[in-house]
Amino acid sequence: MLKIAVIGAGSWGTAIASSLGKKGYEVSLWHRREEIINNIKEKRENTKYLPGITIDENIYPTVNLEEALIDAEVIVLAVSSQAVRNVCESLEPYVNSDQIIVNLAKGLEADTYLRLSQVINEVLPYNEVYVLSGPSHAEEVAKGIPTTVVVSGESREKSEYLQEVFSTDTFRVYTNPDIVGVELGGALKNIIALGAGMSDGLGYGDNSKAALMTRGIVEISRLGKVLGAKSESFAGLTGIGDLIVTCTSMHSRNRRAGILLGEGMPLQDVLKEIGMVVEGINATKIAYQISNLYHCDMPITTAIYKVLYENADVKEVVRDMMTRKKKNEIEEINSLYYHGWK
Amino acid sequence: MLKIAVIGAGSWGTAIASSLGKKGYEVSLWHRREEIINNIKEKRENTKYLPGITIDENIYPTVNLEEALIDAEVIVLAVSSQAVRNVCESLEPYVNSDQIIVNLAKGLEADTYLRLSQVINEVLPYNEVYVLSGPSHAEEVAKGIPTTVVVSGESREKSEYLQEVFSTDTFRVYTNPDIVGVELGGALKNIIALGAGMSDGLGYGDNSKAALMTRGIVEISRLGKVLGAKSESFAGLTGIGDLIVTCTSMHSRNRRAGILLGEGMPLQDVLKEIGMVVEGINATKIAYQISNLYHCDMPITTAIYKVLYENADVKEVVRDMMTRKKKNEIEEINSLYYHGWK
Repeated sequence: MLKIAVIGAGSWGTAIASSLGKKGYEVSLWHRREEIINNIKEKRENTKYLPGITIDENIYPTVNLEEALIDAEVIVLAVSSQAVRNVCESLEPYVNSDQIIVNLAKGLEADTYLRLSQVINEVLPYNEVYVLSGPSHAEEVAKGIPTTVVVSGESREKSEYLQEVFSTDTFRVYTNPDIVGVELGGALKNIIALGAGMSDGLGYGDNSKAALMTRGIVEISRLGKVLGAKSESFAGLTGIGDLIVTCTSMHSRNRRAGILLGEGMPLQDVLKEIGMVVEGINATKIAYQISNLYHCDMPITTAIYKVLYENADVKEVVRDMMTRKKKNEIEEINSLYYHGWK
Repeated sequence: MLKIAVIGAGSWGTAIASSLGKKGYEVSLWHRREEIINNIKEKRENTKYLPGITIDENIYPTVNLEEALIDAEVIVLAVSSQAVRNVCESLEPYVNSDQIIVNLAKGLEADTYLRLSQVINEVLPYNEVYVLSGPSHAEEVAKGIPTTVVVSGESREKSEYLQEVFSTDTFRVYTNPDIVGVELGGALKNIIALGAGMSDGLGYGDNSKAALMTRGIVEISRLGKVLGAKSESFAGLTGIGDLIVTCTSMHSRNRRAGILLGEGMPLQDVLKEIGMVVEGINATKIAYQISNLYHCDMPITTAIYKVLYENADVKEVVRDMMTRKKKNEIEEINSLYYHGWK
């Protein structure tokens, strides 16, 4: 029977382990904190991160990395984006090069601007790295609510193999060869989720939020193209799909942070209030910096940057956006074949 | 001062008249029912269709078409999609050819499969026809909540003129040369809104709905391309933008109808319960028929068609969709430059 190691027993790691366990695979589930693992061992439930979901007996919880990794064909990385480099360094002594790594974290590394698959490749250069991404709240996946995601990486054969490994009758997996676009979609949508939250916090309506999401994906896609992504990916599950889930759900820390900012709360207080990493705040800074580097026009990201880092007034910034120079929509969408009227 | 005639004093017609009136234009607002017009005259408010919004004095309500149209440079059509042909026939004696027609209705004509600008062109062949579309709940526009829409038609100059005419500091207007894509986006998104409602009615979650919306816009875009649209338009405000608003709002009759269907209510009872035209139900039939004609793969539309017209079980249909042959996402998105892996 196929053995899979899931590294990180947060809500998403636990949910994917549970989904894989139900297929009968031998799954090890590693977490660095002993109390989490002991709790799962005793209760067969991750009461802290995924309460209410039974962890099947073929899922083996452990704090021992070597034990978790041994004989695994696939290693699923389910840690926060900031932890990816460190965790990969801890894995390094026990990994062998024919193990496939599948990353679930979404983000960019702060100082290097690297995508996470690049970070993993730096630390574990002999392993193939794939990404699983898309609109997938862990709680819903664990409950068997129909969910559709994308797996992406270098080889078509391995992608299709992973598609088979992860698919269930409620978890539908597409393949996509554009790992750059898949990773950037997952990382950058958090910026727009912050903006959507701000719009909600300002008391604006559905029209405003839909416009912001649509225009947001256009500018993310524009930056993505500069960085080598295919714009089609931003029109897919890991782009607009993931953005829709993030912008319409109260599960999203990014959206919740945006709401508080829109209501006028200062950034420091927002961070205290949320109490966890808000990926979009780092992503905004990185995207803003890259967009300046490449002279890529990102009005929404720039506006959010100004609110976050330059103390700009949210209301004024939105008003500025609404009244800036009138544009031709299609000329701005960067997946174009043609430019405007004949 | 510019004179504009708004034909139809439903919620959207009244809202756009109010927005234009605030710019100081001389606006006539026509409706066929005298009680609606008298009510607006007396109360300076459309209490039936847009309660709570004051109708400024420079807006002239009338049941007299000739009076409404005389000297108007722009005629705004704000009637239901089914009424477009008849209303244009009533306009015909009073229209002169240099009046620009701007259509707000979204749909396709049932028997002819024509887009509404084509219907208008058949009846009024000497007038230029433009379309204004996008994520724009009337109530929010009337309240001055930031809204972003698209104007589309044959000439760039006239489009930019209309952009100026309709823009306010809370109503941002983009231009788009692809009228086919703009009209099809507005008409076909109602199919996916029905599907999103069904997903909600079945008790599915945010993951399911986001996937359905994303995959839905992909197949609508595929059909659109067959019919001569640019796929970029479906990634814009009149495509995914309008779909987001429709799928996340309880204002949407299409979504509400979908919810009832998802809960298992038969179609006839749903129609009785909603009590008004549900555009997506006609649109599903038309899109299904066209997709068969052109051999265009539309799994979501087909599934919804089966529920609506062949008494299929909603749950089984969704299960079928989740488990059909695994696919490569990018190969399916029809705005492609390249196809899959090297």
